[in-house]
Amino acid sequence: MDEKTTIDELKKLVVKFRDARDWKKYHKPKDLAVSISIEAAELLEYFQWKNDEEIEKMLAEKGEKVREELADIIIYCLNFADVTKTDISKIVKEKIEDNEKKYPPEKIKGNYKKYNEL
Amino acid sequence: MDEKTTIDELKKLVVKFRDARDWKKYHKPKDLAVSISIEAAELLEYFQWKNDEEIEKMLAEKGEKVREELADIIIYCLNFADVTKTDISKIVKEKIEDNEKKYPPEKIKGNYKKYNEL
Amino acid sequence: MDEKTTIDELKKLVVKFRDARDWKKYHKPKDLAVSISIEAAELLEYFQWKNDEEIEKMLAEKGEKVREELADIIIYCLNFADVTKTDISKIVKEKIEDNEKKYPPEKIKGNYKKYNEL
Amino acid sequence: MDEKTTIDELKKLVVKFRDARDWKKYHKPKDLAVSISIEAAELLEYFQWKNDEEIEKMLAEKGEKVREELADIIIYCLNFADVTKTDISKIVKEKIEDNEKKYPPEKIKGNYKKYNEL
Repeated sequence: MDEKTTIDELKKLVVKFRDARDWKKYHKPKDLAVSISIEAAELLEYFQWKNDEEIEKMLAEKGEKVREELADIIIYCLNFADVTKTDISKIVKEKIEDNEKKYPPEKIKGNYKKYNEL
Repeated sequence: MDEKTTIDELKKLVVKFRDARDWKKYHKPKDLAVSISIEAAELLEYFQWKNDEEIEKMLAEKGEKVREELADIIIYCLNFADVTKTDISKIVKEKIEDNEKKYPPEKIKGNYKKYNEL
Repeated sequence: MDEKTTIDELKKLVVKFRDARDWKKYHKPKDLAVSISIEAAELLEYFQWKNDEEIEKMLAEKGEKVREELADIIIYCLNFADVTKTDISKIVKEKIEDNEKKYPPEKIKGNYKKYNEL
Repeated sequence: MDEKTTIDELKKLVVKFRDARDWKKYHKPKDLAVSISIEAAELLEYFQWKNDEEIEKMLAEKGEKVREELADIIIYCLNFADVTKTDISKIVKEKIEDNEKKYPPEKIKGNYKKYNEL
């Protein structure tokens, strides 16, 4: 569905859900940022203590649960974007453009600079 | 731009950026989950110690920086979705549907059940 | 008990627990750092969506549960200190000394510099 | 120093530092929980994208920086314990006792139950 679904459609979906419950009053940016962190840790928990092989097995068995955690993070990001009037496409594109200047491919590929030291 | 940009367009953007640098080999799901957590904490840092009034002022002054942190989280979510072959629209819609059953509006609005105790 | 218990006694306690189960092999620094983050988020979850008043009530009712989450964080910190051969008292004292230079009381108290902008 | 330093001595150190700056008013439990999460992510950042070998090298080169992040987490845990009137030794000992019942060594060692599935 990702080929046809716009960011705005997903935003509208989460906003509709929120407003049907009169929950906007709870959606302060700080609490949404707290919630993104909590959900990010719940995603991370699926990978705790596991090596590559165990993760492959875990993803095969519990992939749906893992994806639910990812959905939770994204839902809070969409809510955060709504209350802070943020255009997600715009900030993602701008950030990628910044990173393109920061990490020019020819420099990255050429000098063996380690990804984890960037 | 969110009205016209599809999830797939953003996915393709981050994948193109990643592949131009030959970085797919670093994008193991565990490390991407770690990265989402780290970026979530960087977003949260802007709200640390601040009350509602201070946050309003902070968002007016540093909104662009805050949005960059949100972009970082979303970029890693898109990367995570790519390596785990996840359709973001699908999981977000399904999660919202699950939540609709879990929290029926008429029940939520009626009984003063506290949002933070759900 | 904190008046009489040394850091080393707590360290020995967690190491004894770990070694009785032959778990040292799982305690790689990266996985312990991941675990500290996960437990920190579980502590934070008790505060999610709550204001000051609601937190006071929550702490009165569920204080024991909250303290268990704090214990989990500290247990992983003790384990992390063990595998990285870290003297906790030393690093805490040194960090406080650094902070004393960075934030001299007379300067902090005098100029109304906001805590959240330090 | 961990053999001779009590938890209470470290608690007093952080409380003295805090009070000399008149910062207790900022130390609400929620904001301290937020701060523990932020510092946990800063520790985790040192391990981001790295494999075992790279971590060994990183710890040899930047061990002091890594330990500073651990100190920050512990300092906020001590502050959290102070404002919530928590005896750290007591909660750590009780949690270990709970875990001893939950994970009896003979059962853990005997049946190959995976650590990451406990």
